[in-house]
Amino acid sequence: MPIRQAAADDWPRIWPFWHRIVAAAETYAWDPDTTEEAARALWMSPAKRVYVAEDDGGTVVGSAYLTANYGGPASRIANAGFMVDPDRTGRGTGRALADHVLSEAKALGYTGMVFNAVVETNPAVALWASLGFTVLGTVPEAYEHPRHGTVGLHIMYRAL
Amino acid sequence: MPIRQAAADDWPRIWPFWHRIVAAAETYAWDPDTTEEAARALWMSPAKRVYVAEDDGGTVVGSAYLTANYGGPASRIANAGFMVDPDRTGRGTGRALADHVLSEAKALGYTGMVFNAVVETNPAVALWASLGFTVLGTVPEAYEHPRHGTVGLHIMYRAL
Repeated sequence: MPIRQAAADDWPRIWPFWHRIVAAAETYAWDPDTTEEAARALWMSPAKRVYVAEDDGGTVVGSAYLTANYGGPASRIANAGFMVDPDRTGRGTGRALADHVLSEAKALGYTGMVFNAVVETNPAVALWASLGFTVLGTVPEAYEHPRHGTVGLHIMYRAL
Repeated sequence: MPIRQAAADDWPRIWPFWHRIVAAAETYAWDPDTTEEAARALWMSPAKRVYVAEDDGGTVVGSAYLTANYGGPASRIANAGFMVDPDRTGRGTGRALADHVLSEAKALGYTGMVFNAVVETNPAVALWASLGFTVLGTVPEAYEHPRHGTVGLHIMYRAL
């Protein structure tokens, strides 16, 4: 699956699934009513490297960002976020994006990666575990899930 | 010890110890070279409530902020940060600020508080523990401490 760094004009291809995922309020700790402008400022921030995954026809089916999780003395720990079009899941896009981003993070000199807020009911928890991430801890009763009630947020980590 | 919400014109009283603490690069995961302008944007952000502690003579000896740690479905979990003038430590300022901020957070409807990156060698770890915070987990080898070498970053939590 081709994965490349995103350009500014990829945003209109990312926004439809970005909006759908955040509005569902099941996996991201962001305002489900985030406007397109605020979403673009958040996802396409100059502080982030953004990637897109394309299917064989060149359709953008997923996106990821890579950035530093902290500054100054802890700036070698990375953070990343991943979104796959809900209509295009189950085809390895998330794993391909994660493999790519992990490899990029290592090449950029990051020594570890942290996910700060993984909703514990998110099926991606199993993907992260299969990629070597462990749960450092869980913020209890932190996330109001529309179907599962109040659930925890995992902090997940992997050395690079 | 009087603690009150900060006004914009308190910033020049906060900046000297803010700068000294961040430049020391022992307790905060922020760029030690952060400029005054960037520091003010960070600490006095409109998304944060900022407090100052004053000594009997009205001198600002510490500051704290309170904000949401996440958005949307997890917006009831708070985050806070604390700084006490290094020349004025050991007089209960940190504890007084923390008591005040915890009380404010609870009154505002937050159900828990998370510290995302507590340097494990920071003496404040004992203060947070005495206030009921527990270490949810530790990001290993995440922080380059100028005297202790590479140390971990605790994620600490307390229910409200």
